[in-house]
Amino acid sequence: MTRVGIVGATGYTGAELVRILCNHPDVELTILTSRQFAGMKFDSVYPSMTGVVDLVCEELSVDSVCDRSDVVFTALPHKLPMAIIPDIIKRGKKVVDLSADFRFKDATTYESFYQSHTAKDLLEKSVYGLCEIYFDRIRNAELIGAPGCYSTSVLLPLVPLLKSNLIDINTIVADSKSGVSGAGRTLSLTTHFCEANESFKAYKVAEHRHNPEMEAVLSLEAGAPVKITFVPHLVPMTRGILTTIYANLVQKTLPEDIQNCIASFYSGSPFIRICPGDKLPDTSNVRGTNYCDIGFKLDERNNRLILISAIDNLVKGAAGQAVQNMNIMLGLDETAGLKAVPFPV
Amino acid sequence: MTRVGIVGATGYTGAELVRILCNHPDVELTILTSRQFAGMKFDSVYPSMTGVVDLVCEELSVDSVCDRSDVVFTALPHKLPMAIIPDIIKRGKKVVDLSADFRFKDATTYESFYQSHTAKDLLEKSVYGLCEIYFDRIRNAELIGAPGCYSTSVLLPLVPLLKSNLIDINTIVADSKSGVSGAGRTLSLTTHFCEANESFKAYKVAEHRHNPEMEAVLSLEAGAPVKITFVPHLVPMTRGILTTIYANLVQKTLPEDIQNCIASFYSGSPFIRICPGDKLPDTSNVRGTNYCDIGFKLDERNNRLILISAIDNLVKGAAGQAVQNMNIMLGLDETAGLKAVPFPV
Amino acid sequence: MTRVGIVGATGYTGAELVRILCNHPDVELTILTSRQFAGMKFDSVYPSMTGVVDLVCEELSVDSVCDRSDVVFTALPHKLPMAIIPDIIKRGKKVVDLSADFRFKDATTYESFYQSHTAKDLLEKSVYGLCEIYFDRIRNAELIGAPGCYSTSVLLPLVPLLKSNLIDINTIVADSKSGVSGAGRTLSLTTHFCEANESFKAYKVAEHRHNPEMEAVLSLEAGAPVKITFVPHLVPMTRGILTTIYANLVQKTLPEDIQNCIASFYSGSPFIRICPGDKLPDTSNVRGTNYCDIGFKLDERNNRLILISAIDNLVKGAAGQAVQNMNIMLGLDETAGLKAVPFPV
Amino acid sequence: MTRVGIVGATGYTGAELVRILCNHPDVELTILTSRQFAGMKFDSVYPSMTGVVDLVCEELSVDSVCDRSDVVFTALPHKLPMAIIPDIIKRGKKVVDLSADFRFKDATTYESFYQSHTAKDLLEKSVYGLCEIYFDRIRNAELIGAPGCYSTSVLLPLVPLLKSNLIDINTIVADSKSGVSGAGRTLSLTTHFCEANESFKAYKVAEHRHNPEMEAVLSLEAGAPVKITFVPHLVPMTRGILTTIYANLVQKTLPEDIQNCIASFYSGSPFIRICPGDKLPDTSNVRGTNYCDIGFKLDERNNRLILISAIDNLVKGAAGQAVQNMNIMLGLDETAGLKAVPFPV
Repeated sequence: MTRVGIVGATGYTGAELVRILCNHPDVELTILTSRQFAGMKFDSVYPSMTGVVDLVCEELSVDSVCDRSDVVFTALPHKLPMAIIPDIIKRGKKVVDLSADFRFKDATTYESFYQSHTAKDLLEKSVYGLCEIYFDRIRNAELIGAPGCYSTSVLLPLVPLLKSNLIDINTIVADSKSGVSGAGRTLSLTTHFCEANESFKAYKVAEHRHNPEMEAVLSLEAGAPVKITFVPHLVPMTRGILTTIYANLVQKTLPEDIQNCIASFYSGSPFIRICPGDKLPDTSNVRGTNYCDIGFKLDERNNRLILISAIDNLVKGAAGQAVQNMNIMLGLDETAGLKAVPFPV
Repeated sequence: MTRVGIVGATGYTGAELVRILCNHPDVELTILTSRQFAGMKFDSVYPSMTGVVDLVCEELSVDSVCDRSDVVFTALPHKLPMAIIPDIIKRGKKVVDLSADFRFKDATTYESFYQSHTAKDLLEKSVYGLCEIYFDRIRNAELIGAPGCYSTSVLLPLVPLLKSNLIDINTIVADSKSGVSGAGRTLSLTTHFCEANESFKAYKVAEHRHNPEMEAVLSLEAGAPVKITFVPHLVPMTRGILTTIYANLVQKTLPEDIQNCIASFYSGSPFIRICPGDKLPDTSNVRGTNYCDIGFKLDERNNRLILISAIDNLVKGAAGQAVQNMNIMLGLDETAGLKAVPFPV
Repeated sequence: MTRVGIVGATGYTGAELVRILCNHPDVELTILTSRQFAGMKFDSVYPSMTGVVDLVCEELSVDSVCDRSDVVFTALPHKLPMAIIPDIIKRGKKVVDLSADFRFKDATTYESFYQSHTAKDLLEKSVYGLCEIYFDRIRNAELIGAPGCYSTSVLLPLVPLLKSNLIDINTIVADSKSGVSGAGRTLSLTTHFCEANESFKAYKVAEHRHNPEMEAVLSLEAGAPVKITFVPHLVPMTRGILTTIYANLVQKTLPEDIQNCIASFYSGSPFIRICPGDKLPDTSNVRGTNYCDIGFKLDERNNRLILISAIDNLVKGAAGQAVQNMNIMLGLDETAGLKAVPFPV
Repeated sequence: MTRVGIVGATGYTGAELVRILCNHPDVELTILTSRQFAGMKFDSVYPSMTGVVDLVCEELSVDSVCDRSDVVFTALPHKLPMAIIPDIIKRGKKVVDLSADFRFKDATTYESFYQSHTAKDLLEKSVYGLCEIYFDRIRNAELIGAPGCYSTSVLLPLVPLLKSNLIDINTIVADSKSGVSGAGRTLSLTTHFCEANESFKAYKVAEHRHNPEMEAVLSLEAGAPVKITFVPHLVPMTRGILTTIYANLVQKTLPEDIQNCIASFYSGSPFIRICPGDKLPDTSNVRGTNYCDIGFKLDERNNRLILISAIDNLVKGAAGQAVQNMNIMLGLDETAGLKAVPFPV
């Protein structure tokens, strides 16, 4: 059994890691840290976990974490991870970081959207944890910068088409819609029940921090600078992201060509499901699972492709993908611990 | 007091007409028809109306309707209105039709998306009831084809910019998100609580019937054929449409120019609210009201405009706009009966 | 026009007062105070009010409030009102307080559930603002202690039966279910969207502060000490309280007797609707309105009465009832400003 | 591997059986029947199951079912199961029926609430599948009548207290609140999104068919006739039942006595969780799991016990409990296939 620690276990992403890992066949959860709830039993912070998880939340101590873990997940706000991960890596542990701190190869991009980077030498070493695209690099990685939830929902459908030069990279618009859990457990008026319920709105229009993250990957895969317009919206539901992507086709293309492009690219990927025929993704079909469902439609009159993806932002968009990264790094079955069957409703 | 009848009063649009008109200062509600609930008191179909409306639903009889009404609202599925409206018009009544039957000047467009038109001679006479754009024509109209809910949310923000030639008409994408009441009261799996709740999905992608309706108006106002990509989505909430529109600017344009273009166009329009500064529309701000809130953001890196509108699909998108049309036709204050103040939550 | 000020205008209750009063035919809203948002326009705190209310929130100054108001509503957490209301009353203003500070005749009851009372001499003067029961006293009042939302939903159905000695006062159980807006706009984990959504739970079981308030009134009306078991629950919706009351009948009683008892008691009350036949209350039927719907069922096998009421907690349970009190105090039509028609959905 | 068939696999209960059983370590799902969707792939009826379940729905044929199954689950409306179960039992198969047909020992009770019973001879053989109470009988059973969802939520908390004679059996009131999935997948106005959303109401007050089912068990366990008042309510959420039970204590009782009574009764029951200290059940803590959480509070002033339970109506209230019954009948680990960890949100 691999011993696993979670740093920052009581936010929604951390708690979702606990949920997945406490049922993982090859893993033992050994240490949970939480600044806010140190000293409290995890199941008194999340009563749903009563009888399931018996750990007490601890103050963060890199020594304690390293003494008791082989793999460490860091589920903290950005800036905090880069302060501790260098020490954890030095102790020979594998790390999956869920913040933005290790997502960029290029420190200057990071620094222009976040703050100065204090562990730049690790950036070269770190691997962007988009499993279906960077599987081989992840296999040999020690440090994973796990993708943001929106980025995952935008990149997975787009990358195959970009690599096949099917779409015009100057015309890409991504219109994303996320459930409220994406905003985390921290209190805010935006996530107050009465303000979010029966409400639909856009936010951070064309200025969300996942934008440069997406563009870095898209540019790399397209072999040319890609600038997209990205607009996130807030949906009155707890989990799920649906992203609708619009892009012009470089030439007249048949639906079968699109279908084949995506399907062949993801032929060996257990978590990608291409919607058959006229079916389209629905966030409720992936809730609680690590699936990314992808569908599309051609607007032939405008020679425009409409590409749609659905993920659970807390699973494929965060904790599930992080565990998938760990599985790959450890040489385990990629789907270990991630076989949850979606609810019918 | 103007006597008003509603044909098809027990669907959501009909019932919303009842709600608005029973409180209208210049109007007396005299007759409600309903095929499904004929013979039942309206307040036993909608118990919320107990003590408010005391009418009994009747079988449709054009004679009864005409004998007791000066203005008739028809809130029926398309095809039914064109069978009865010619007779009502002949009797000298003013009619506001909420179906698609009288939205098109051009019968062939209608016929290619619906069925053959049996009252073509009325098409020339009918006026498309987008009040802020066609106010003058509505003033003299006898027959209004009231716009669809999605069309209203797409046209109101776009028309001023099209008329000012600020945007590239070949690049328009409209990504709409609607509450479930837009699907009406008829039962379906899509609108079953357990299927719609905690779910977000697209439907009728690039093939919704409001698409040709929008394009007819946009082309007219742009003075050139406009083809847009329109994708509607279903939001787990009851009321509201938020539409996010993407379009390239024909040249570098300042935010103030956009702001001024829209604001001056709608300077005399009591139901259009332009969001100030960095604020953006939210469906909850217009719920239960006839407002259309409009906001925008420039994606300067891509020289792309992001235009956002919010309406209540049952009010500004249907019953409220229909009443606004009636007010204009009758020479009443445009806002009569439509002064509902939105809920804080 | 009566000039009206609202102290504490930016909580949900205060904002609901603004919504109702800005459309009231006999009233002019002159001053809004808010500790948190002083200096900001009200419509930037509640963007839904853009174009509707043009006031700027002010710091509380009793002088300013009294200079510009004839009637003052205080929508503050308890303890704060009793510090300022004596001065406002001294200035000859009428006051409707929505906190618990002036709900009790008996200071010791108040003090055992809240804190020491600093304006005891006003308690005798103040009138408990349950309009349908204390109409005559309210007419001559200067100071109203407006009832709590739960209390309103429990007292209105129970009082007629208690006064008629139909039920056994030792067997009363009130099981209430409230929408989340009852918890106010203050942030808390309980009202975080992700925690409240898809969740149903009880809270403050048999220890809610509205319990003594209810019992004081019930005892008074029954002419004997009444102790009830009161359990509130939280419903994943924004507005509405449904209360289900259980009580043994003192003797075999026919449904008609119950019906007549309630109906005759409320024969002149425009906001009480008795559900006809087999119909029962539903919170959605009263949303946004000042109605209290009442229904019941006899469990004849157990000689037990099941009494159900539905109100909108922010209207009949707070701001609407407060305005109703003002109307009565000022000799206006009791329903002035409160004629909102409920939404069909 | 035990071969399992599900008759009626496309309702919510049937689909939930599929979800649980397709991940069960000791079971192979071999046949799914569906009248409405015969001939369609199960994953085209429930797209969430794509890549998970590869079966095609079949018309019901008792022969096919028996040829391919060792255990049969029947998830049909009542009346249908009793027409086919005799034949299945004759073929030596074990059956778990989720309808009301085999819940009553006494055919006359069944017949007074449903219709005439056509398989009365099986009633003696059948065992009421409330696992924690009738474990020993279930072990040797061939036919299980699985309890209703409401009955499960009422009986599990009450039975220990009744058996210990702690509560007055003439004073029991059960106030239940259920998510909408309890009404099934069949379309109805009640379950239309717009009618259920933002609505809370009671229904079938003191006349629900689960009432006699509960009373049969309660009377048996109390050794005396028990008549309760049972009132179900509909909550705007998909899954979960919270039941609040009120009963007078026969004498002054300490909280510890209640706690001990329930805890010792359920000491060996892996799915019963007694809430510690002041914590109370919340449906969100058991969503997707087979847990029944139980909490309580004493209203000492009235010597009344308030007992609260939470279950997922589709799991512990239906499919999960049915699988638990199968596990017990087959001598498997009681928790096999039922170890799902609840979501943090």
